[in-house]
Amino acid sequence: MLTLKHLPILSFNENLAYLHRDCTAYKVDDINQLTKIEIHGGLKTVYAFLQIVDDARLVKPNEIALNTEAFKMTNLPEGAKVSITLSAPPPSLNSIKRKIAGNVLSSGEYSAIVNDIASKRYSNMDIVSFLVASGSFMSAPEVLSLTEALIGDRVISWDKESIVADHHCLGGVPGNKTDLIVTPIVAAYGLSIPKTASYSLTSCAGVADTMSVLANVDFDEENLKELIEQNRGAIVSYNALDIARANKIVGNVERQISITQPEHITASILAIKMAAGITHLLIDIPVGPKSRIKNTNEAMRLRKLMEYVGDMLSIEIDAVITDGSEPIGNGVGAVLEARDVMKVLSNKKDAPQDLREKSLFLAGRMLEFDPKLRGGQGYAAAQEILDSGQALEMMNRIIKAQGQKDPQQPGKLTRDVVANVNGVVDAIDNSRINKIGVLAGATQYPGAGIDLLKKVGDSVYQGETLFRIHSCNSTDFAFANSVVDGYNGYEITPQDDED
Amino acid sequence: MLTLKHLPILSFNENLAYLHRDCTAYKVDDINQLTKIEIHGGLKTVYAFLQIVDDARLVKPNEIALNTEAFKMTNLPEGAKVSITLSAPPPSLNSIKRKIAGNVLSSGEYSAIVNDIASKRYSNMDIVSFLVASGSFMSAPEVLSLTEALIGDRVISWDKESIVADHHCLGGVPGNKTDLIVTPIVAAYGLSIPKTASYSLTSCAGVADTMSVLANVDFDEENLKELIEQNRGAIVSYNALDIARANKIVGNVERQISITQPEHITASILAIKMAAGITHLLIDIPVGPKSRIKNTNEAMRLRKLMEYVGDMLSIEIDAVITDGSEPIGNGVGAVLEARDVMKVLSNKKDAPQDLREKSLFLAGRMLEFDPKLRGGQGYAAAQEILDSGQALEMMNRIIKAQGQKDPQQPGKLTRDVVANVNGVVDAIDNSRINKIGVLAGATQYPGAGIDLLKKVGDSVYQGETLFRIHSCNSTDFAFANSVVDGYNGYEITPQDDED
Repeated sequence: MLTLKHLPILSFNENLAYLHRDCTAYKVDDINQLTKIEIHGGLKTVYAFLQIVDDARLVKPNEIALNTEAFKMTNLPEGAKVSITLSAPPPSLNSIKRKIAGNVLSSGEYSAIVNDIASKRYSNMDIVSFLVASGSFMSAPEVLSLTEALIGDRVISWDKESIVADHHCLGGVPGNKTDLIVTPIVAAYGLSIPKTASYSLTSCAGVADTMSVLANVDFDEENLKELIEQNRGAIVSYNALDIARANKIVGNVERQISITQPEHITASILAIKMAAGITHLLIDIPVGPKSRIKNTNEAMRLRKLMEYVGDMLSIEIDAVITDGSEPIGNGVGAVLEARDVMKVLSNKKDAPQDLREKSLFLAGRMLEFDPKLRGGQGYAAAQEILDSGQALEMMNRIIKAQGQKDPQQPGKLTRDVVANVNGVVDAIDNSRINKIGVLAGATQYPGAGIDLLKKVGDSVYQGETLFRIHSCNSTDFAFANSVVDGYNGYEITPQDDED
Repeated sequence: MLTLKHLPILSFNENLAYLHRDCTAYKVDDINQLTKIEIHGGLKTVYAFLQIVDDARLVKPNEIALNTEAFKMTNLPEGAKVSITLSAPPPSLNSIKRKIAGNVLSSGEYSAIVNDIASKRYSNMDIVSFLVASGSFMSAPEVLSLTEALIGDRVISWDKESIVADHHCLGGVPGNKTDLIVTPIVAAYGLSIPKTASYSLTSCAGVADTMSVLANVDFDEENLKELIEQNRGAIVSYNALDIARANKIVGNVERQISITQPEHITASILAIKMAAGITHLLIDIPVGPKSRIKNTNEAMRLRKLMEYVGDMLSIEIDAVITDGSEPIGNGVGAVLEARDVMKVLSNKKDAPQDLREKSLFLAGRMLEFDPKLRGGQGYAAAQEILDSGQALEMMNRIIKAQGQKDPQQPGKLTRDVVANVNGVVDAIDNSRINKIGVLAGATQYPGAGIDLLKKVGDSVYQGETLFRIHSCNSTDFAFANSVVDGYNGYEITPQDDED
């Protein structure tokens, strides 16, 4: 038996166990092999990967130290007695080898893989090998199997509702927080819409980040149900809901290797929405040369795949391909995006029209999930709800119900990036804008980001501001400044008067 | 600036940097993203992945702690002042995405990937994604590019020698330490053979492990050259030679995910041998249903691939396909294998004949690298050298030159696994025997392993010992016992008198 100790180290979702080289209960192996152990003593077995320690101040020979991730999973206090055993590799790892060898895996195999991921029996390296081996080589039925496995064993049930709608955007386009406008429109219309949102993966802000500026987003299933009962609509974090656990682990690994493949995107989105009990789902697939989905062929393939999996799982899917060639709205980063959203909902004169138009288009498609609405009338219904102020009223109710936050200001350190010629903005590079925003601190500080004052088609004169960088501290500000001078993402066609 | 501290933690070859959450020099990011930093202050930049610490006793806000792997690379003492910056993802990661998308990568791309791996700019997860993405999808010219990249910038030159021979077995067959018999035969014949050997990857013992029982194996390039000058032959660890660095890192990751693909095996072996300055290489490809290479088609494909890469790199390759259907020799595990090797070299009556025959066959092929020897005369020449005692004499000289070790005994905890029927041994399952041996402690204790008293074709009676497990401690012994009762790897066809 070893005495449990907590080493307060966060290791980005890998469970780590630290044993002294002279551990009394286990012969520590020094042969450079990743060793997985099982820790027994709590309610359930916890799996962790071994790190060898040569300093008794960190961990004594009769102790086992766990990092924060693993310690939490034991549900035991420091000082508890635990026993450890060597963990055999989970048999499902053989399926990964079979996938590498070109086989089609059975739904039983996907189920075993996902169960082992959920119980932390896979190292992050094992998860990468699964993701890279499967990705581009999954048949549509395999994507269905993976989706079913990722749903997990907990599905939120909405027994009083015949339509439970949601909307998901595949991302890659800065700004673009239509979700926060679509949700109150759909809720005001009367459809229930428990929008499950994600935090930023690689972008400046996810829907959960932007909503967090306005209200709380962390709710459990019971509270979410109360919110929906109250207002028909809510915008909450998927992370806080105890659903689709394995999918969260897989998502973290995808983020760490910056690789997401269409088959996994499909399985992941549909699994989350199925676990959230959604019956009708609108999917926005933005296409642009610098967006996540680069061309229409790719988008069409993804759409067909989602339709197939959706049909098999009896979820109604409407997948629309939209223009992802430039950022949507002006603000990029949570606070600036929230500002744009509220401007649109308030029908402000300076509200970004592209954000308004796209939101109406998407909301219109969602309203048509309602069988009572005649085909083609969705857009007009959405416009009526927005223009009349009902959408704003609903958003304010949603914000109050979720717990309104104090207003936040954009970062105080600013720099105006200006045009170096007279001309017309021809293109704005999504991925460059995103990068500048991330470096300005957008993923860490809601107030950091970029305010786009010019969009594609706008005329600019030399020295006029194209966009403004907002940072909350000098380190981030310096980072953003250092890259923006190399390439600011704007393509400007010079005009005659400048020649 | 931060003060450098060493946290004596071994993390299986991943460089880890521990920063306090309130680090004074860097805003620690809590968004679950794997963050790579650069540590400046030593002679060269060291890359490490961030772990977040919430305990100032481990690392203070003005300190940076490094695990053992990263600390060593800085070449700095504790207390040194270093600065850190966020590290941009290496551009070569884009090539991995291109590979996933099905592209053929250029030799420049392979070179950039391997350089980034060698300088630790890839996380182990990134290396996995490279290995799984490329493996089965490399054209022969790509394997050549990868091989060239893995050779690295240091190649051992043997300017006095026209033939520098080596021998490599692809493994998967327990026992099978022909290398330790072939090397002294070839050296006694007069060809120079600086055998670079590996430690066990997934087997009970690698050639380096078995040779370590008899003599030291860790030598640098200069010492290796002295050994070859002295005796023509040496059996040394590839690990201790400062060659093909990236290949070592990749090998460690392959071991951790237990995935090795033929294209990578080819590139790895040929890169090591090229870096070691080998001109003539014999490759033994054992084929068997429970061996690494399962069938002749696969073996033939591998042979052609090796011949192609070898031809392009002007190394003479003779790749032979051998019988890998059952273990070779009786001992499995370093001490027991060394015993078998010395029995064969000493022409002992009870020497395992299969090990002797296979060694003579392979040595004969190697001797025929000598243009002076007529085709087909290799075997007879090898036999003459072995039977006359010249091979034993050479082995003893090699052992003395490398530094003879004290004799070691097999593990004292033993169990005889017996036949449960009268009959004939029909098959022995390589992978099961290997597993039992590994659990018995073979990868950690040279004395642990398995002694096979019966081989395929032998008659056995009920209760007769099939093999003996040797362990060095009770934990390992219990492990081995717990699996052997389920399935011991022997297939016995019962005979009439038992019906």
